[in-house]
Amino acid sequence: MSDLKRVHGGVVAPKGFRCAGVSCGIKTAVGAPDIGLIVSDVPARAAAVFSRNRVASHTKAVNRARLRRALHRGIVVNAGNANTCTGPGGLTDARRMAALAGECTGAGPRDFLVASTGIIGRPLPMPKVEAGIVAAAVALGRTRRHGADFARAIMTTDTVPKSCAVEIRVGKTPVRIGGAAKGAGMIAPNMATMLAFVATDASVAKPMLQRLLSEVADLTFNRLTVDGDCSTNDTLSVFANGAAGNAPITKAGASCNAFRRGLLAVCETLVKALAADGEGATKRIEVRVTGGRSRSEADRVARAIANSPLVKTAVHGCDPNWGRIVCAAGYSGAAVEPGKMKLRINGTVLFRDGVPCRVRPDRLAMCMRPRDVVIALDLGRGKHEARMWTCDFSTEYVTINADYHT
Amino acid sequence: MSDLKRVHGGVVAPKGFRCAGVSCGIKTAVGAPDIGLIVSDVPARAAAVFSRNRVASHTKAVNRARLRRALHRGIVVNAGNANTCTGPGGLTDARRMAALAGECTGAGPRDFLVASTGIIGRPLPMPKVEAGIVAAAVALGRTRRHGADFARAIMTTDTVPKSCAVEIRVGKTPVRIGGAAKGAGMIAPNMATMLAFVATDASVAKPMLQRLLSEVADLTFNRLTVDGDCSTNDTLSVFANGAAGNAPITKAGASCNAFRRGLLAVCETLVKALAADGEGATKRIEVRVTGGRSRSEADRVARAIANSPLVKTAVHGCDPNWGRIVCAAGYSGAAVEPGKMKLRINGTVLFRDGVPCRVRPDRLAMCMRPRDVVIALDLGRGKHEARMWTCDFSTEYVTINADYHT
Repeated sequence: MSDLKRVHGGVVAPKGFRCAGVSCGIKTAVGAPDIGLIVSDVPARAAAVFSRNRVASHTKAVNRARLRRALHRGIVVNAGNANTCTGPGGLTDARRMAALAGECTGAGPRDFLVASTGIIGRPLPMPKVEAGIVAAAVALGRTRRHGADFARAIMTTDTVPKSCAVEIRVGKTPVRIGGAAKGAGMIAPNMATMLAFVATDASVAKPMLQRLLSEVADLTFNRLTVDGDCSTNDTLSVFANGAAGNAPITKAGASCNAFRRGLLAVCETLVKALAADGEGATKRIEVRVTGGRSRSEADRVARAIANSPLVKTAVHGCDPNWGRIVCAAGYSGAAVEPGKMKLRINGTVLFRDGVPCRVRPDRLAMCMRPRDVVIALDLGRGKHEARMWTCDFSTEYVTINADYHT
Repeated sequence: MSDLKRVHGGVVAPKGFRCAGVSCGIKTAVGAPDIGLIVSDVPARAAAVFSRNRVASHTKAVNRARLRRALHRGIVVNAGNANTCTGPGGLTDARRMAALAGECTGAGPRDFLVASTGIIGRPLPMPKVEAGIVAAAVALGRTRRHGADFARAIMTTDTVPKSCAVEIRVGKTPVRIGGAAKGAGMIAPNMATMLAFVATDASVAKPMLQRLLSEVADLTFNRLTVDGDCSTNDTLSVFANGAAGNAPITKAGASCNAFRRGLLAVCETLVKALAADGEGATKRIEVRVTGGRSRSEADRVARAIANSPLVKTAVHGCDPNWGRIVCAAGYSGAAVEPGKMKLRINGTVLFRDGVPCRVRPDRLAMCMRPRDVVIALDLGRGKHEARMWTCDFSTEYVTINADYHT
């Protein structure tokens, strides 16, 4: 990983990308940016991963159709309205957004993907959205500020924008990968929708790009839970425009591994930022399960722990209630054996071989104090591992999600 | 159901049962009852359903072994300590509790089942527990007060005791079924453990008793969720002593159906009481899913909705955020189709055929006001149904579960 360097600029850190974030009035706060646009100077390979929710935003249908094409120019996104459960008009609106982004940037009407996030069940205010897309096209640029504007425009109840970028070497060529993401909590009024956008100047063949994105998503975005609710709009997309000039990555090998490492670094950074900014979160939790007989066994246990409201409230109260963690492992569906388990919280061993450990009370009280809490459970049954990221469960979460009135 | 009559007395409403609830000092509150005992005057058939959690209380192993016997005399229970994750000594303690209950009541050392609920990972204070069992045996009686004492002795963070009883006719013979239950929230300090005890003076063959109990549990206790956490100690047990004098129920038919109706009524009443007393609950929620293509499809959707923190916080805030309900159906794993759905909350139709309904704002605001909220989702795909009971998700839930310090 020594050749991996953090750089500034987010989605416009790679060569040959411009972006913008502007306000068009979908969000009720005056002047809050709510339209984002990413454009590649030249046609780029694109790949995407979507929510598996059966109730899906109209953007998903449009993107699935568009992704059959070989090349794309970028993506347009609005925040504040999910364009989900909006009837057939919603499909027309999603197509119109993508087509207009194409027109305003000198590309074709089918060269753009589209993303939406926000309230469910309300038609998009299309006159505002259209004005916003035109304004975003005018505002496009490739500076750090533009990258920050984009990251801010996609926020809903996020408290901070999230973006990052890295530079790696593919062969001898410096290549950059930048990303921005929003909203891991399923957010007021109806639900959050995790959106993540990655841009890279690497040259990567389209099938390989899709394969790497899916693999990396399984290790990062698919390992994030805030409240166990899987949204209707979750989308992770990547655009690779080849501006770095590396030899195209078409098959497995050193170049492919280097690019994959960079993509993984960007996605993991974004996921950790999303976990830390979960709704009402005061702590970030990493669940590390080792010693599983199979990967799926480790995965089930990690998911059960990360989704348990009892574990998450205990972390919120800095209470090392290890019984709740062992209990969640027990109901995960995996064939765990308490007598073989070893549980550590931030390094302190609390439970081993079926029996609680004697821990000095001051040490016990301290182990959950840090803002980052690592729950490490060794199942003692094999060699497989799994990780999950989540956050604690606070009264603030309930307040955010209960106190909105339609 | 016209022949079903509610009666008083809880677990001692049926003939030939005595019970007690006494304090032995496991709970920290002085004088709080924490040992319960149910005894049948004559040997009874018993059946039980246990938590499927792989991390299980030592009581489960003891009960599984005891249940191989044909006849039993009763059950002893302690509250305040789960006897889970306590090492091999915990198994000895569970056996000792059951054996002592037998000795003190003139029964054999293997005639009793045993149940525990409370904190995980601490050895039982056996001298106190033993003194408590002796005291409970002395205090046994068959009045309404004794039934109430038992229901109170099994409580942990429950705010009210839960018990009920019914009288039905099996053939021409009046038969009574009584029950008591505790703790649907997974409760401080480590987790709640749902315990339910049913006694009946019906004569029922043991295999039929187990079959009916499992069927009824699937329709009642297995349809209750407070926080999605499945405990290590959940146990539902039934004792049938035949004191009513009905012709023994050995096979399907009218007598069997009558008894099953009574058992279902008792269990459903207890489950509704548990939902209403969920940790921090201010509302009780019933999720009714109809129109599923299969029972498992309806079941998946009902469970996803009932477990969604976003749905539960919305109900807490009286916010008819129907998008969250439709979203939960979408990620349930069932192949739902939004265009065929019809969603009603307390009778008000909010979403139909993929499009939100226009509802008068005052009507919308009112539909979630009642303490009981019925979420009815018709999937429009078939004839199968499923129900779930749960409660809302309040800041109080977080406070209860975060603010305990080990």
